[in-house]
Amino acid sequence: MKRSALAIVLAAGDGTRMKSAKTKMLHAVGGLPMAAHAVSAVSKCGADDIALVVGRDGDKVSKACALPGISLETFEQTERLGTAHAVLAAREALQRGYDDLLVTYGDTPLITQETLSKARAGLAEGNDVVVIGFEVENPKGYGRLLTLDGALTAIREEKDASDEERKVRLCNSGLMAINGRRALEFLEAIDNKNAKGEYYLTDVVEVALARGGKASVVMADADEVLGCNNRAELAVLERIWQERKRHELMLSGVTMIAPETVFLAHDTAIGPDTIIEPNVRFGPGVTIAGDVTIHSFCDIEGASIEAGSQIGPFARLRPGTTLHDGAKVGNFCEVKNGDIGPGAKVNHLTYIGDASVGARTNIGAGTITCNYDGVNKFRTEIGEDAFIGSNSALVAPIRIGSKSYVGSGSVITKDVPENALALGRSRQEVKEDRAEFIRARALALKAAKNA
Amino acid sequence: MKRSALAIVLAAGDGTRMKSAKTKMLHAVGGLPMAAHAVSAVSKCGADDIALVVGRDGDKVSKACALPGISLETFEQTERLGTAHAVLAAREALQRGYDDLLVTYGDTPLITQETLSKARAGLAEGNDVVVIGFEVENPKGYGRLLTLDGALTAIREEKDASDEERKVRLCNSGLMAINGRRALEFLEAIDNKNAKGEYYLTDVVEVALARGGKASVVMADADEVLGCNNRAELAVLERIWQERKRHELMLSGVTMIAPETVFLAHDTAIGPDTIIEPNVRFGPGVTIAGDVTIHSFCDIEGASIEAGSQIGPFARLRPGTTLHDGAKVGNFCEVKNGDIGPGAKVNHLTYIGDASVGARTNIGAGTITCNYDGVNKFRTEIGEDAFIGSNSALVAPIRIGSKSYVGSGSVITKDVPENALALGRSRQEVKEDRAEFIRARALALKAAKNA
Amino acid sequence: MKRSALAIVLAAGDGTRMKSAKTKMLHAVGGLPMAAHAVSAVSKCGADDIALVVGRDGDKVSKACALPGISLETFEQTERLGTAHAVLAAREALQRGYDDLLVTYGDTPLITQETLSKARAGLAEGNDVVVIGFEVENPKGYGRLLTLDGALTAIREEKDASDEERKVRLCNSGLMAINGRRALEFLEAIDNKNAKGEYYLTDVVEVALARGGKASVVMADADEVLGCNNRAELAVLERIWQERKRHELMLSGVTMIAPETVFLAHDTAIGPDTIIEPNVRFGPGVTIAGDVTIHSFCDIEGASIEAGSQIGPFARLRPGTTLHDGAKVGNFCEVKNGDIGPGAKVNHLTYIGDASVGARTNIGAGTITCNYDGVNKFRTEIGEDAFIGSNSALVAPIRIGSKSYVGSGSVITKDVPENALALGRSRQEVKEDRAEFIRARALALKAAKNA
Repeated sequence: MKRSALAIVLAAGDGTRMKSAKTKMLHAVGGLPMAAHAVSAVSKCGADDIALVVGRDGDKVSKACALPGISLETFEQTERLGTAHAVLAAREALQRGYDDLLVTYGDTPLITQETLSKARAGLAEGNDVVVIGFEVENPKGYGRLLTLDGALTAIREEKDASDEERKVRLCNSGLMAINGRRALEFLEAIDNKNAKGEYYLTDVVEVALARGGKASVVMADADEVLGCNNRAELAVLERIWQERKRHELMLSGVTMIAPETVFLAHDTAIGPDTIIEPNVRFGPGVTIAGDVTIHSFCDIEGASIEAGSQIGPFARLRPGTTLHDGAKVGNFCEVKNGDIGPGAKVNHLTYIGDASVGARTNIGAGTITCNYDGVNKFRTEIGEDAFIGSNSALVAPIRIGSKSYVGSGSVITKDVPENALALGRSRQEVKEDRAEFIRARALALKAAKNA
Repeated sequence: MKRSALAIVLAAGDGTRMKSAKTKMLHAVGGLPMAAHAVSAVSKCGADDIALVVGRDGDKVSKACALPGISLETFEQTERLGTAHAVLAAREALQRGYDDLLVTYGDTPLITQETLSKARAGLAEGNDVVVIGFEVENPKGYGRLLTLDGALTAIREEKDASDEERKVRLCNSGLMAINGRRALEFLEAIDNKNAKGEYYLTDVVEVALARGGKASVVMADADEVLGCNNRAELAVLERIWQERKRHELMLSGVTMIAPETVFLAHDTAIGPDTIIEPNVRFGPGVTIAGDVTIHSFCDIEGASIEAGSQIGPFARLRPGTTLHDGAKVGNFCEVKNGDIGPGAKVNHLTYIGDASVGARTNIGAGTITCNYDGVNKFRTEIGEDAFIGSNSALVAPIRIGSKSYVGSGSVITKDVPENALALGRSRQEVKEDRAEFIRARALALKAAKNA
Repeated sequence: MKRSALAIVLAAGDGTRMKSAKTKMLHAVGGLPMAAHAVSAVSKCGADDIALVVGRDGDKVSKACALPGISLETFEQTERLGTAHAVLAAREALQRGYDDLLVTYGDTPLITQETLSKARAGLAEGNDVVVIGFEVENPKGYGRLLTLDGALTAIREEKDASDEERKVRLCNSGLMAINGRRALEFLEAIDNKNAKGEYYLTDVVEVALARGGKASVVMADADEVLGCNNRAELAVLERIWQERKRHELMLSGVTMIAPETVFLAHDTAIGPDTIIEPNVRFGPGVTIAGDVTIHSFCDIEGASIEAGSQIGPFARLRPGTTLHDGAKVGNFCEVKNGDIGPGAKVNHLTYIGDASVGARTNIGAGTITCNYDGVNKFRTEIGEDAFIGSNSALVAPIRIGSKSYVGSGSVITKDVPENALALGRSRQEVKEDRAEFIRARALALKAAKNA
């Protein structure tokens, strides 16, 4: 029978060493606030309900963690009296009764579903507390997990450890699973008789064992349980997260010439045989089909890219952009809220905003859609098989018909019918030998300035 | 006397874990398919003839490996019955008789000429088989090379190894040199009496020793013999290859502020006292003289850059581009098939395509050469000491004479004589106090939309 | 009582392995010549006077090291007879008499003020020579520091060391502090009776001990005493320097998504809650307030950025640029010597040079300030709340009044009054069904070419 589970995610920590105007819980990894990663992990591990314990910026943290399809309650920890006290801020949820209780932290965003599931499996096997442990070369400073015949017998803080115990390299991450039927009993038995006068969740092991319970350990990679206290540590979390996501994509058939220069977002989806050259950044909301080439120096956000498309180098795709099969967006081009038809080309120095470009249409270098009047945004609609000459300005709202042709350097302010030629430029004048005069005048001006 | 050599490069492996529509042999390292690297290495090591054994995408692999000046025959391995079977696909070449036989792999592209030469030297010293070995900290899973007094006595697979043998850290790379006069005899004596029923090249050692031959080992760096089974491994090959090439260039006098952000191609050539800022990508076909500065964020391919030139930041040079002495191409500029004269400047937001720019000519910001009519490409020729005003469009085919002057914002459709001034723009109109009306209208429109 | 100090920075080394037209001392780390880093470190450590000993490119090295507020004398080492000989090139300075003498190297730019201060403290405690040492895993090739009860008893070169001494992992960096009252006495007692016939500064320890002096060691990180003999080593210095500076900024409250892709200059200053996305390069002279967002792919030099500004992606800010509160400079935009008012927006494909943009003014995509006539630069002044339509060219010198409106695609050559509408573009013409003819002509041309 499926076991019910409550997860409590402790996200009340502030993080003064972040030196930030907002709580550390809102700082992002892979473009998603770190507390939301923690919530996502417990959700993937099958938690039926999730209780989020917040402090500073509580409303914002709660909002940031409200991921689609997740049942989330928020509890405020008004005083900061230790981790066990923080867990009890969600007493109301605990009282409802669950088979399993998971306790994780909003600033431990890299914990995996796999490890959390192993901890729940430990409860199913009859343990009352399953602590998530990790091993490091140099365990100095960490609480040690003392075990006997596979059972967890105690968590020993560095300062209380014997010389023998200090050699133990198995450390306490602070994350754990607790028998949901006895969690409240255990937590309420934890006291604050210690130097700082705080209620420590760690003490749940001692309490449970004293009351005849059983405890055990499951292992996590040391990376999974890294916390975040300053921005250098935030950068480490980001690096590990990026490495995981890149590796996953590479194994699925995506080529990254230099994976360490490709920056992904939490929801980036990329199909096989896509080639990503060095130095590409993905913001949130990007979906890429297979067989796409993304050249170096691209910045892509909120875009849907179909098969056979080519992007960059030096292209920026902004939210609302779709590239249909075999479309090309080239160097120094920006597309915002633009629909680029199959086989259409936007190759050089162009701004396409609030526009659609029909199939096979060629947009010349230096084309600008003028979509803004200082207050409103307007649409540009360009048909199929059209040719927009270089350095043209298309003043929206405007429609350029299929198979039409816009002369280079034109300012187009009125609709262009299908198959028409539109021009909006001046006739060229030539003044023979006039350049000499211009140069002489410029040099005289310079001489006058320097005099 | 010079010894003759045949190299057999096994490139029939497919690589299903690459999850690719093409064989892994065609995936590139440094912009060159990995099988071509393997071919290049045996060629540099002095192989007179090279036999390429192909499977999937055989024609493409063969074509990709047809490097200039290399004598290459292609053999197809129709069934996949093991590495010895693969080598025998080139029986016809083997039968011609050579002093030395080298066997390498198309997906082991980092093997160096130096290591292969050491293997050949081992044959010259009287060995019949010289296996290329490597050492690793943790040899688990690798076949071990068992040696006695410097001679190779056996290759032992992990599963068949004794506890003592498992401690051996000298591993088998699979690459080897074989006495070319006895190779066919040895290879034909290999049987397939093993779990998978395959013919293993590794068994050549046992066969040779049984027939009174001698075997030895030469060492490679572990990096040199890395293979490639998925795209994460491909990225590792690329990283190592890039690191080698960067190091070589730095030692030759090229400054790279952040070498790990400079991506080179197999044929990139750069002269001393060139400075490369962070984040520069070189595609194939780039030659750079000394004393060039390449600023950050450049993408350069198929270009020849002369001394004293400056490029970027944010410049893209495409095939067919030459920058003559002291030329400058600056930010958000693209040059394709363009010849930029000595001291000429193309500094901002410009597209130069199919064009020549004379010495000392200044191309203003936002200039576009309109080289395409939707079907054909045309040339733009700009003389020396000319001045092209900003935001101009030059509609090709066109010639702009030396010392001429094009006014800003002009569309130039007819040739401009030497020393002439050309203008193609409208006279400015000013409507006093009209902006207020425009703003009011825009705001009214917005209000109407929101209503 | 404060002790007086002279620092001698040896910067006469040439560096032939750099393969450069200039001395290695002039090669930069963090945008500052490495010798200037060395000078800066001794200055921060409280040296009253600094003697720079130069060789090749002496004038340039001297000039490069003339940092503001530093008292620097330059001495030329005409012959190259060893490090002790180099120090004595500054005999004139030494003769003035100081309590402390510090000797460092122009190509050891990473030495920290903290380590140098520890060395001076060693002198204050009664030592006559305090050598800066470091520990490495594998000390092979380094001179070893032999100590007894905390005192330095000898410096032993690798070749002269016993087996026991070779196991010592405490190595000699060559940097040291010497009792300034006895330094000249010690230095003059050093002889050149050795294989190379050079005067080695290292021998000062033996001399001092022989004359009843005391010697000791202070430790540096191995990174601090790295020297530079080729460009690969230069890249290592740069990497370590960048890592230090990034870490410092992160701890002070700056977010770097991928710190290894952010390249800082020696004087980069950035306020807290600034977010820097991957791939940003800072040249010298950048000051950034807090709460600024710098998107990916930016190149910023000589710019002052106020709070709430947004930059990039793909923006280039050049010297003389100020962004006032909440200003935005977006993709493919270059600003040079430009003052961008509070809340003003320069969002796409724009060149702003020698210009001011008033508060809240919007600069449309593709706008170019035409600031250059081939000889002189002119200013563009744009008022507040103005709207510059896309693809406009503003021909300087020019003033665009506040609240004015410039139509898209205009070439503006005359001042625009406040609140006026300015247009400078042609009326659009449409030729029905003409595109078909153009296409047919283009295809015929292609056919003719191919025929």
